Amino acid sequence: MNLPADNEETMTNVRAEKVREVARLATRTGRARSGEFLAEGPQAVREAMKAHIAREAEGKDAVVRSIFATDDCLDRYPEFEEMVAKAPGVRARLVSPEVLAAMADTVTPQGIVAVCVIPEVKLEEVLAAKPRLVAVLCRVQDPGNAGTILRAADAAGADAVVITNGSVDIYNPKAVRSTVGSLFHLPIVSNVALSEAIAALKGQGSTILAADGYGTADLDALQDASAARRTGGKFESAEGDPVLEEPTAWLFGNEGQGLNEDELSRADHRVAVPLYGIAESLNVSTAATVCMYASARAQRRG
Amino acid sequence: MNLPADNEETMTNVRAEKVREVARLATRTGRARSGEFLAEGPQAVREAMKAHIAREAEGKDAVVRSIFATDDCLDRYPEFEEMVAKAPGVRARLVSPEVLAAMADTVTPQGIVAVCVIPEVKLEEVLAAKPRLVAVLCRVQDPGNAGTILRAADAAGADAVVITNGSVDIYNPKAVRSTVGSLFHLPIVSNVALSEAIAALKGQGSTILAADGYGTADLDALQDASAARRTGGKFESAEGDPVLEEPTAWLFGNEGQGLNEDELSRADHRVAVPLYGIAESLNVSTAATVCMYASARAQRRG
Repeated sequence: MNLPADNEETMTNVRAEKVREVARLATRTGRARSGEFLAEGPQAVREAMKAHIAREAEGKDAVVRSIFATDDCLDRYPEFEEMVAKAPGVRARLVSPEVLAAMADTVTPQGIVAVCVIPEVKLEEVLAAKPRLVAVLCRVQDPGNAGTILRAADAAGADAVVITNGSVDIYNPKAVRSTVGSLFHLPIVSNVALSEAIAALKGQGSTILAADGYGTADLDALQDASAARRTGGKFESAEGDPVLEEPTAWLFGNEGQGLNEDELSRADHRVAVPLYGIAESLNVSTAATVCMYASARAQRRG
Repeated sequence: MNLPADNEETMTNVRAEKVREVARLATRTGRARSGEFLAEGPQAVREAMKAHIAREAEGKDAVVRSIFATDDCLDRYPEFEEMVAKAPGVRARLVSPEVLAAMADTVTPQGIVAVCVIPEVKLEEVLAAKPRLVAVLCRVQDPGNAGTILRAADAAGADAVVITNGSVDIYNPKAVRSTVGSLFHLPIVSNVALSEAIAALKGQGSTILAADGYGTADLDALQDASAARRTGGKFESAEGDPVLEEPTAWLFGNEGQGLNEDELSRADHRVAVPLYGIAESLNVSTAATVCMYASARAQRRG
C-alpha cells in the first residue's frame, strides 16, 4: 500500500535523524524549537487532518506538516489515504512499526502519528469573533486535566480556550491525548498573562466568573434563575447574582489550591458548584464541565 | 513524638514482613487475600479515620485497621494523634521515611498511609435506605475515571455507588487516590452482576437512566422541564421523557465504547449530554458528573 503523496520507501531506521526529530516533540524544548507538536493515534490524526483540509480550503495556515503511518494502520483505516490525497501540502511517509514506536510518546500509538503546527492564535482574533463562552485556565498543572477541560469546552460549544502563563503546556503529549481531538476544534490562545486576558475579555463585554468552591453565588441557583427566565417561571435570585445567559469567561484554577486570591480578585463573581454530599471539592475538570454546561444551557436556549 | 496507641519503636527495616504485607495491597491478589486496601496521604487517611470514628460510635465495623506515619508527618499534622487517641482499635506505628516509601504505591505518600478494611456492602442494605440517586459503573476500566466518578457521586449527594462485575477494582491505589477520600463517604457495592443490580434497583422504584451519547432524551431538555416544574414555568417535554425528580440510577459505561447494547437494553431511558461543539463525546467521568448534578439539582429542590 502506498501513501499517494509520497513514493519514497518505508522508513525502517529507528536511529534516523528524522525519527529523533519527531520523538523530541515529546519535550517542551523540542516543541519550542520547531513550533510543532505530535498528534498520536487514528482519532487525533483524523481530527487534525479534517481541520487541516477545512482550513486549507479557506486559504488559512497548515494544521498538519507530516504524517507517519504503518502499512497495517492504513489497511485498517483507508480514510487516511483519501485525506492525504486531499491535502497535497502534507508530507506522508510509511514507517515500520519500530520507527513509529520510536517516534511516539504512547506505548501503543496504533500505527499513526501526525506532526502538527502549534498555531499562534492571538487574543484579539478570538475577541474579534465576539465569543460568548470562553474557558480560561489558571495554573492548571496536570496535562490530563487541561486536556479534559479543553475537550469539555469543545463539547459545551465554547468559542475559545485561553491558557494563561503558569499552566501546563497543552501541546504536551498527555494533554494532547486527553483532548481526544478537541485541540483541533476551537481556537486556543497560549502564552498570555492572566491580567492581559481578563482585561481584554472584560473590554469585549464578557462577565468573568471564577469557579471557586468557596464562592458565594451557587451555580444551581444561577441555573434555576436562568431556566425560570426562559420558561416564564418564578425564581428569586440573590441581588447582584451573575446572569448565565450573558457572554461569560470562566476561570478554572490549580487542581490542588484552586484559584488564588489574586486570580479571584480579578473576577466579577465567584461561583461555587454546590456540594451536596461530604466531598470537599470536585476535580477541576469535572467542575469545569458542570460550569461550562450551565452556561451553554443558559445561552443556547436564551 | 509518640503515637499514643502504640509505644513500639519506629519501624526502620524496609524488608520486614509487615512492610511487604502492606505493599502487597497495591495488587489485586494482595487485597483479595487480606480483604484490605491502602489509603495514602494525609487527606485520604483523615477521611478514613473520620469515617472510622463515626462508625465505631455507632457500633459498626472498623474502617481502618492500622496507620503508619513518619515523625515528620505527625509534626506537620498533629490531628492524627488526636484521631488515633479516639480510635483505640486502630494500631498505629511510627515508620522511617524509607519504610513508608516501601509500603506505598505513590512516589510521594506524604508521610502517612492507612490499611483499611474493604467493606462488604450488600445491595439490599443500600436499597433498604430508599436511595434517590445511585451511580452504576458498567465496565469502567480506568482507575482514575472510576475514582473521579465516585468523587463526583459524593459531591452530587448520591446515596450509593454500584460497581458491577467487569469494572476496575475501586480499591486499586490509583482509583483510591482519585476518590480523594470520597471512598469513605458513601456506600459502595462491588462484585455484583449488572442484571442483578438493575432488577433490584427497579424493584425498589428507581428509574434506570443510561448515559449514552446517542440517547434520544436530551439532558438539557430534561433539566429545563424539571426547572419549569419547580418554578411554575412552561416547557414542553417530549412524551415519555424521564422525570429527573424521581429516584434515579444512572448507568455509566466503558470509556472507549460507552454502554453496549445489552447494557443499554436494560435501562428505562437513554439520555444524552448534548454536544454543542465538534467533540464527538465527553470523557465518562465528566459526563457522569453532568448527569448526576442534573439529578441532584432536580431532586434537591423538588
